Amino acid sequence: MSHDPSGHPAHLGRPGHSGHPGRPARIADVAALAGVSIGTASKALNDTGQLRTETRARVKAAAEQLGFVGDARARALSSGRSYTVGMVTTDSFGRFTMPVLLGAEDALSAGEVMVLVADTRDDHVREAHYLRSLVSRGVDGIIVTGRSADARPPIEVPVPVPVVYALTPSTSDADVSVTLDDAAGAAAAATHVLGLGRRRVAVVTGPVTARSAELRAAGARSVLGDRMTGEPLFGDWSERWGRRAVDQLDRTHGRVDAVVCGNDQIARGVCDRLRETGRSVPADVAVTGYDDWDVVALASRPPLTTVDMRLDELGRIAGRSLLELVAGGRPASTAVTPTLVVRESTAGA
Amino acid sequence: MSHDPSGHPAHLGRPGHSGHPGRPARIADVAALAGVSIGTASKALNDTGQLRTETRARVKAAAEQLGFVGDARARALSSGRSYTVGMVTTDSFGRFTMPVLLGAEDALSAGEVMVLVADTRDDHVREAHYLRSLVSRGVDGIIVTGRSADARPPIEVPVPVPVVYALTPSTSDADVSVTLDDAAGAAAAATHVLGLGRRRVAVVTGPVTARSAELRAAGARSVLGDRMTGEPLFGDWSERWGRRAVDQLDRTHGRVDAVVCGNDQIARGVCDRLRETGRSVPADVAVTGYDDWDVVALASRPPLTTVDMRLDELGRIAGRSLLELVAGGRPASTAVTPTLVVRESTAGA
Repeated sequence: MSHDPSGHPAHLGRPGHSGHPGRPARIADVAALAGVSIGTASKALNDTGQLRTETRARVKAAAEQLGFVGDARARALSSGRSYTVGMVTTDSFGRFTMPVLLGAEDALSAGEVMVLVADTRDDHVREAHYLRSLVSRGVDGIIVTGRSADARPPIEVPVPVPVVYALTPSTSDADVSVTLDDAAGAAAAATHVLGLGRRRVAVVTGPVTARSAELRAAGARSVLGDRMTGEPLFGDWSERWGRRAVDQLDRTHGRVDAVVCGNDQIARGVCDRLRETGRSVPADVAVTGYDDWDVVALASRPPLTTVDMRLDELGRIAGRSLLELVAGGRPASTAVTPTLVVRESTAGA
Repeated sequence: MSHDPSGHPAHLGRPGHSGHPGRPARIADVAALAGVSIGTASKALNDTGQLRTETRARVKAAAEQLGFVGDARARALSSGRSYTVGMVTTDSFGRFTMPVLLGAEDALSAGEVMVLVADTRDDHVREAHYLRSLVSRGVDGIIVTGRSADARPPIEVPVPVPVVYALTPSTSDADVSVTLDDAAGAAAAATHVLGLGRRRVAVVTGPVTARSAELRAAGARSVLGDRMTGEPLFGDWSERWGRRAVDQLDRTHGRVDAVVCGNDQIARGVCDRLRETGRSVPADVAVTGYDDWDVVALASRPPLTTVDMRLDELGRIAGRSLLELVAGGRPASTAVTPTLVVRESTAGA
């Protein structure tokens, strides 16, 4: 072998580049270094064809030495798959959809699939634009998510593509939706306070127009029965409403020994107002939240017993369901059951 | 023209599909419907070549009618660009990096570029894997971000690729970093309380080991001079620390008429403890936060005057800088100046 540096394979044998600074190593470089044809190099790297083990190993060593990374785009075109999925949200990947994205990324990356994000800002024109762009990129599928548990119409795509709805379900039963079982989460909180011996339990939740507020109130009622004191109070999702709700309960519901709240912010407000009016949490009144949002639940005085929505698990299921759809399977719609997290606002009560 | 439905162009003329249900329209379908060659159709759709205006319009109308979306992957291979960038974070796209992602998406989507997300969970092996995967997909560039203002070593990529560091700068001056001017934000808060006539101002901030805590304390000190009462108190980023800091100030700093805090959680704790010990905010003591995190700043009693970090603007600048790098430009590293948001914790004081 010549030692002429110009283009000779031996010259290519420096780690991390191809002998052409700034140019990625190509399969031709790998073939030259291994002393095989491009076709043989391709078979060796793709684990196809009939090759001697020694040849395959030599090609792979050459690829390693050159830092050859291949080209996922060329592979995508030949396989008909892009190993990319789109995730479209109406929620700016906020408090609720961010864990869903991370869970989905988790499930998808195990299948070597990466996620293209598209935030529609609740704008239909923008959504249509992003969907066209995703389809034109040949995404294997699309996950659609949003901030609300209220169902949304199916997305409109110019060509058929596998779609999974996460958190925000599709209005069409033909679609695959992965949602939260909000009633079950509230039922778990209610069961917990009954287990502490509480018998005069108030329910304070969010707007009467929000499906999750309605479902959480219904879930608590189903467990509490006549241990529920008065009707559920609907308001908004804020600490301020939690504080006001305590005053309203005092006026209309009489003495209560537990308050099951629709989210952590309401529960934090309830705890603050109870303390400021001379009642101890949990000794006098046990309080539960919903969401397990650390900045609220842990900062509360005392820290909140609350419901972990397991949004990351919801995202993982959505990711796995999408992979199943892409592979030609027929995954069913599912609802994730939240879990109770017990902290000082009920513990030791 | 024949009206035989089998494969005749007229048969293709239904909106949204190609005559082969479930198969996206191909350029051959467009060419057939327009009655031109595939080469002519390609030139018409790409606005290249010498064609009659009428021919170009007819091809475009055919593409529209068939819902032809082209193939961004094929276009990417021929252009040498993928119109995709990677965004790598060590922060699980948390509180700080999420607005950066959205800002970057905003800037990039204007250039028809979409963002592939990769969350490394602070794991070096995972980071290396994601970087290889992004490079293999031919991303035009990479934005690297994290939760901290502390610099990080440059990423290691198998081939050269344009990179911009956002929020968390690179340790290398050769890299392009877009950061926050933390000192300027704290200086703005300090200037504001001096403008209210306050002359005994305490500074309470986060861990002494955090660069942003140090910079915010230094920024406040630079403005306050001898109106700063005692040394800055370093603790952690929690409400609990804010409450404790009030007791510590009472013991060691004497009377104060303003507290400039290192974040919103500390400021909320300071407000709560001041109220609980009989002092009015802002009449007796003006309080400022930092971050403008709505769930804390707006829920505080009273709502907080605070510093908006403009993370979305930081993300937009990072996105635009990356586009500039990709186009062969040489963008400079920049620092975004935060802005003050005035609310009840100082207003009317």
